[in-house]
Amino acid sequence: MKAKLLRKHKHRPGRAPGQIEAPEGAVPSVVTMFAYDLDRLEEVQGPSPDKIRELLKNWPLVWVNVSGLADVGLIEEIGKIFEIHSLAMEDILHIPQRAKVDEFENCLFAVFRMATPDGGSYTLEQMSMLFGRNFVLTFQERPGDIFDPVRERIRKGRAKMSKADYLAYALLDAVIDGYFPVMEHYNDKLDALEEGILTKPVQEHVRRAHKIKRELQILRHCIWPLRESVANMKNGENEFVSSDTQVFLRDCQDHVIQVLDILDSYRERVSGLTDLYQSTINMRMNEVIKVLTIITTIFMPLSFLAGIYGMNFDTSSPYNMPELGAPFGYPVLLAVMAATALGMLIYFRRLGWLGNGDNKKR
Amino acid sequence: MKAKLLRKHKHRPGRAPGQIEAPEGAVPSVVTMFAYDLDRLEEVQGPSPDKIRELLKNWPLVWVNVSGLADVGLIEEIGKIFEIHSLAMEDILHIPQRAKVDEFENCLFAVFRMATPDGGSYTLEQMSMLFGRNFVLTFQERPGDIFDPVRERIRKGRAKMSKADYLAYALLDAVIDGYFPVMEHYNDKLDALEEGILTKPVQEHVRRAHKIKRELQILRHCIWPLRESVANMKNGENEFVSSDTQVFLRDCQDHVIQVLDILDSYRERVSGLTDLYQSTINMRMNEVIKVLTIITTIFMPLSFLAGIYGMNFDTSSPYNMPELGAPFGYPVLLAVMAATALGMLIYFRRLGWLGNGDNKKR
Amino acid sequence: MKAKLLRKHKHRPGRAPGQIEAPEGAVPSVVTMFAYDLDRLEEVQGPSPDKIRELLKNWPLVWVNVSGLADVGLIEEIGKIFEIHSLAMEDILHIPQRAKVDEFENCLFAVFRMATPDGGSYTLEQMSMLFGRNFVLTFQERPGDIFDPVRERIRKGRAKMSKADYLAYALLDAVIDGYFPVMEHYNDKLDALEEGILTKPVQEHVRRAHKIKRELQILRHCIWPLRESVANMKNGENEFVSSDTQVFLRDCQDHVIQVLDILDSYRERVSGLTDLYQSTINMRMNEVIKVLTIITTIFMPLSFLAGIYGMNFDTSSPYNMPELGAPFGYPVLLAVMAATALGMLIYFRRLGWLGNGDNKKR
Amino acid sequence: MKAKLLRKHKHRPGRAPGQIEAPEGAVPSVVTMFAYDLDRLEEVQGPSPDKIRELLKNWPLVWVNVSGLADVGLIEEIGKIFEIHSLAMEDILHIPQRAKVDEFENCLFAVFRMATPDGGSYTLEQMSMLFGRNFVLTFQERPGDIFDPVRERIRKGRAKMSKADYLAYALLDAVIDGYFPVMEHYNDKLDALEEGILTKPVQEHVRRAHKIKRELQILRHCIWPLRESVANMKNGENEFVSSDTQVFLRDCQDHVIQVLDILDSYRERVSGLTDLYQSTINMRMNEVIKVLTIITTIFMPLSFLAGIYGMNFDTSSPYNMPELGAPFGYPVLLAVMAATALGMLIYFRRLGWLGNGDNKKR
Amino acid sequence: MKAKLLRKHKHRPGRAPGQIEAPEGAVPSVVTMFAYDLDRLEEVQGPSPDKIRELLKNWPLVWVNVSGLADVGLIEEIGKIFEIHSLAMEDILHIPQRAKVDEFENCLFAVFRMATPDGGSYTLEQMSMLFGRNFVLTFQERPGDIFDPVRERIRKGRAKMSKADYLAYALLDAVIDGYFPVMEHYNDKLDALEEGILTKPVQEHVRRAHKIKRELQILRHCIWPLRESVANMKNGENEFVSSDTQVFLRDCQDHVIQVLDILDSYRERVSGLTDLYQSTINMRMNEVIKVLTIITTIFMPLSFLAGIYGMNFDTSSPYNMPELGAPFGYPVLLAVMAATALGMLIYFRRLGWLGNGDNKKR
Repeated sequence: MKAKLLRKHKHRPGRAPGQIEAPEGAVPSVVTMFAYDLDRLEEVQGPSPDKIRELLKNWPLVWVNVSGLADVGLIEEIGKIFEIHSLAMEDILHIPQRAKVDEFENCLFAVFRMATPDGGSYTLEQMSMLFGRNFVLTFQERPGDIFDPVRERIRKGRAKMSKADYLAYALLDAVIDGYFPVMEHYNDKLDALEEGILTKPVQEHVRRAHKIKRELQILRHCIWPLRESVANMKNGENEFVSSDTQVFLRDCQDHVIQVLDILDSYRERVSGLTDLYQSTINMRMNEVIKVLTIITTIFMPLSFLAGIYGMNFDTSSPYNMPELGAPFGYPVLLAVMAATALGMLIYFRRLGWLGNGDNKKR
Repeated sequence: MKAKLLRKHKHRPGRAPGQIEAPEGAVPSVVTMFAYDLDRLEEVQGPSPDKIRELLKNWPLVWVNVSGLADVGLIEEIGKIFEIHSLAMEDILHIPQRAKVDEFENCLFAVFRMATPDGGSYTLEQMSMLFGRNFVLTFQERPGDIFDPVRERIRKGRAKMSKADYLAYALLDAVIDGYFPVMEHYNDKLDALEEGILTKPVQEHVRRAHKIKRELQILRHCIWPLRESVANMKNGENEFVSSDTQVFLRDCQDHVIQVLDILDSYRERVSGLTDLYQSTINMRMNEVIKVLTIITTIFMPLSFLAGIYGMNFDTSSPYNMPELGAPFGYPVLLAVMAATALGMLIYFRRLGWLGNGDNKKR
Repeated sequence: MKAKLLRKHKHRPGRAPGQIEAPEGAVPSVVTMFAYDLDRLEEVQGPSPDKIRELLKNWPLVWVNVSGLADVGLIEEIGKIFEIHSLAMEDILHIPQRAKVDEFENCLFAVFRMATPDGGSYTLEQMSMLFGRNFVLTFQERPGDIFDPVRERIRKGRAKMSKADYLAYALLDAVIDGYFPVMEHYNDKLDALEEGILTKPVQEHVRRAHKIKRELQILRHCIWPLRESVANMKNGENEFVSSDTQVFLRDCQDHVIQVLDILDSYRERVSGLTDLYQSTINMRMNEVIKVLTIITTIFMPLSFLAGIYGMNFDTSSPYNMPELGAPFGYPVLLAVMAATALGMLIYFRRLGWLGNGDNKKR
Repeated sequence: MKAKLLRKHKHRPGRAPGQIEAPEGAVPSVVTMFAYDLDRLEEVQGPSPDKIRELLKNWPLVWVNVSGLADVGLIEEIGKIFEIHSLAMEDILHIPQRAKVDEFENCLFAVFRMATPDGGSYTLEQMSMLFGRNFVLTFQERPGDIFDPVRERIRKGRAKMSKADYLAYALLDAVIDGYFPVMEHYNDKLDALEEGILTKPVQEHVRRAHKIKRELQILRHCIWPLRESVANMKNGENEFVSSDTQVFLRDCQDHVIQVLDILDSYRERVSGLTDLYQSTINMRMNEVIKVLTIITTIFMPLSFLAGIYGMNFDTSSPYNMPELGAPFGYPVLLAVMAATALGMLIYFRRLGWLGNGDNKKR
Repeated sequence: MKAKLLRKHKHRPGRAPGQIEAPEGAVPSVVTMFAYDLDRLEEVQGPSPDKIRELLKNWPLVWVNVSGLADVGLIEEIGKIFEIHSLAMEDILHIPQRAKVDEFENCLFAVFRMATPDGGSYTLEQMSMLFGRNFVLTFQERPGDIFDPVRERIRKGRAKMSKADYLAYALLDAVIDGYFPVMEHYNDKLDALEEGILTKPVQEHVRRAHKIKRELQILRHCIWPLRESVANMKNGENEFVSSDTQVFLRDCQDHVIQVLDILDSYRERVSGLTDLYQSTINMRMNEVIKVLTIITTIFMPLSFLAGIYGMNFDTSSPYNMPELGAPFGYPVLLAVMAATALGMLIYFRRLGWLGNGDNKKR
């Protein structure tokens, strides 16, 4: 999971708002355009500003998608064609933004994060969407998105898609539904982690749990404000969202809340797993120390006894170590040692230190 | 407890809303139907769509229950008979949904989780309920439910049951009351766990606590939104719930809140138990280390003394180990050793390391 | 402290609401009745339903108290006399209820928990109170309550007590004031626990802290909804509570909030005490391990030296253990050993491992 | 810091409200009185009730301050002069009260806690303040307060002080500003504690942290409701607070919030310090165990070797311990031992167990 | 990071509000002044009060900035020129204040914290801003600020800057944007800390984490109320902020919320890092104890065997230690010892105590 929460500033604070500049690491902009009504569809790759202007004038609905934010001139030009407010233009090009919906005179402006598959994991890229009465305008950080099914639906039939607000809803819905595979991805990761901790807890698990925790935290910071944004879009009294579409936005909102519920349950689960790891480690340390104590407790007295009879007292005195001269001294001592060791073992077993077959691998 | 919080997606994000498809692992649909007024009752097993349409036309109230969601065609047909909105149809077939109540033009749509007994445990299955002026429509994931008492009440007397909203309330009430045995189930589990930890703490307890915690967490995620839903149904100004029934929904809401209260107290209790386990384990490690220290502290000096008198210095020099030649050297040394050990034991007893009979099994 | 949060169900979910049945373990019902105006007072023990009906008709205010919920027939009869809604009747007999206030057509219905002294501890029993214009009706689980001072005040003078709402307030106030001795009880318990942990931490303390924590948690779950209930009663615009009495209910509310404040501070205190216990135990383990390490570190090298000079190398070779033959070998070795031990002790003292007289009993 | 959260009940619950009785441990009451207008000032020590009545009648503003609550008769008399509601009288004499502001017909009644210096620490004593159109009435638990600057301002010039609400504000402001020195006091304590833990962590620190935590908790329980009270006083639409004074109360409210902010930051700081202590202790235990392990690991093999060559096998067999007869056996063994010990030390240094000069004192 | 949350009081509580006095450690005041309209600009360093008065009268907009709060007389004079309320004057000179926005008759008064670079770190200094219809007045604790870009914009073109509210917004925006570099600063610190803990956990890391935690906590206490303040300024219905500027304040608010989001994520991250540290330390202690146990378990039995054969029993008895006389006694014993040690090692490897190459450095 790659995502950033923090914008790297190249400027000093205090610059004028509305200044436009490509974000760090931006890729070249690719423009695609759909213009359609119920009957006809015109799909243009890389239209010129003039072409965009012309199509906007002649069709009831156009959707312009810009992937890549490097060509600031082009983006500014498009901004002018659709009469975008300078603050919105600034927000499109500043990454990262907190998810939000702002109302302007001629359009609604929404900015949020979109999870796009990236190798075996996911990247959260910023997406801006503006829609007015007859246009939808989207900006993505990189080419490659999750809107192909929407494009397919436009190509196949445009009955429902003929309003700007419904198209905007369809795109938003695709973005929100795109979070479910991410949740599945983390579900699998958590299952693997739980399995690992229960079979063989190693330090690596803590690092993985730490990493998953941070990624879930970043996800939550990205998705949480989206909840509010969708609610604003749904409830807001504005001229851009029809009441028909508001019913569908209710569905969107349910899904965002569900994603957040799942995220929260995962966060609790990670915490639970680190606790489980910790208590497993403690238990094992306990076992190790028990082994140490048992060995020490058995062999120290035995060694002491052996030490006693290794002393060099002058046995010519009858009081000095008469045991050494006894004909059965050695076997008796061995018997005493065996009895001592056995007694210890029985005692430890009664204390429950031995043979609680709770952990196969101790 | 079996339940899922996460929907496995078979589709790519971006598909059109309202598309209907059987959920993964769905079982064949079984339809039962009640049609009745105050005087008469007609109960039909597996009615055809035509039969449903006929009964709906001719009776003041019908209740159609569909168990199993595999027969999408049939469900779609029923959806058409009752004029269900496409978003509601989608929600019925998508599992899991977050509990919610949505108002549509001709009916209220509620979706929630129902706890059904399953072996010695419980399963949370999704239940959808739609009710309008003259019908109640319920969809369950599996056959086998907790509505038999409601059916019995319909068969015996229909005085109160003659309104759709009251029937819907009775079903909802049955679902909510169905959570109390689940709570009892967990109460028993927690009692057993507490008993186990206090008598013999083993690692297995942590795993069980971890499992119970996760299950309670899932339960909470399922029941929490139900609270809001019942409140919406109770307070909402809609034409489907009469003020008479609202008084009964107040009772429902009290029960949901009580279930959530109990759940929260259980969650706190699990946390308390893991803390108790941890501190018990720590205490025992402490005891083990004390034993190690006592044994070491007693025998190390004794072994050292024995080692001293095992040295081979040339005793022909009067300065070298004169003790060895003394006639009472050995008994004196043994006495010194015994005195040392005794002194140590007395010291440890005064430190409180010995004989605090706090734990019978140490 | 005895209390239950969870109702044991004898019925299957789905039964009709309003069904009346004695709770598990109910004791026989004892009825007492007060009927009075400013001048006169009639006090009846165990009135018959007819007597109740007669007094209700003839007096401006009656208070009927039922202790014990076993005689369902009698309770049902009384319910009919005062025209109690079937849902309220059900709540009176179902234990436990969450504290709440419901408004019905002819009365306010409040249910809450009352702390009654029980041996050295307290029991939380459920109390239901209904009051209309000219009656107050109370139900308790068991005989023996905390209303004797209220009865005394009725017997002595009825100037203020002549309104149903004020009598209800007086009873509620008695219930809420009854929580303060419970708080004192826990204050004493916590003081004793703190004292115990600071002087001699044993595992028993953890169990006691665990028990107190659970009891405080149950108390909180019982009292928390009472706060809301009193607020509802105070602010609610209903015909049963006069504005004069609302001023007094404000006082009640202050007291409930104060009880909850104290409860919260106790919960934090228990947590603090378990932390204190834990850190004390850790400190002691630290001390024990220090002793182990010091003893081992001092005696291992000494024993090694003794072991060296206990070896049996052939001393006829001048390179083999010439020390053994030296005339002062033994005293020199002893001096070396003493110097080593002393050096170790000085080193440990400089490390701060010795003699930090922080804990008298280690 | 001395303060109580819990009232010790001498009465049984159920007594009538408004009963007046001196709190436990009350000190004799001392009355002081200020009566003034813009031009004149009369200051009376210990006025009789008649004197109070006379001054109240003749002056536009009087301030009566009662320190000590033992003389219930006098306090009741004063209550009658100013026509105080019986519930307010009860609250004045019951300690402790939760901070609150109640409106009565002829005055506002505020009760809160005041921090007065007491030796090197502070005591929280209860203060009640009532003010109407032409009077301010204050009750304190003990003589000695923080109002001398206010008195001085009255004596020096009364331009602003000529309204009851402004005088009440001035007193409240003095009380709130009186919390800042308390905060400083705890700041110093926390600084000292942090210093102590970082240089030499002993168990005493945990006890001090525990004590500070409890005191901050009690402070918070006392100040938190004050926030609400000041807000009520500021926003409340009543005839006792003029809009001019409301501007000043806004300032009061800012200060209360600031005190609470600081309190919260201190609470987090105490938690941080106990964590720091815990991790320091753990680190040290780690160090101690490392020393133990290093010593054991080095000397156990050496002692074993010495033990081998102390065995008494019959060296007449050429297979039995030929080393003992070798002319360089002893020096070779010593060299082997030295090499082993050196190897171990090098190994431990490479493991990082030696010489991480992180802690000067280990 | 240097900042204070707590004001050091030099006065006793109870002093009159509105008294003016330089804060502790204040530096001499430096005044700069901008007076401009669309066409002209007059910039004055250190204007006299008369000059300020004159420019205020003759220009449509003046901005007076005072850096350093030591010259109380001058500040009071400026306060009089702009007719500042006494409470505002007091707040300007009392440090620290909680961020807030107050409305007065002739101006809005905002006070907040500004992060200024200070060596490699940042200082939070208090800034007060007042703006009315034709003036903006700012007070800073120290010279050196982050407003140079704003000054530059005024010098270059004044089209947008010609209104007081927009200038105030521009200054506020500069302050809020000034927090982003601080966030970056902490991001770097946290990255370094995480790297450090993962490669070599030492106690120093805990201290650094503790320090970062406290600084983030102080930052949060400073920025949190700013959120509310900006919201008040944006939504407040006052005559000082035009609706055009409100759109820009919406942008400000987004940025404050973003800063707070990042702060919260950092706080969680610090907690995660201390947990990671703790579990790494525990893991290492576990490893150390394992080494101890392995060494002890291998060598104790071996030493015991060596001790046995070092005993001096009289071998003239055939029962006493016949092994010593056996011709292959010694090599057989060595073989037994080697087998024992090998068996132990194999056992430990099977327990998983050896060779889990999880940590390179153990």
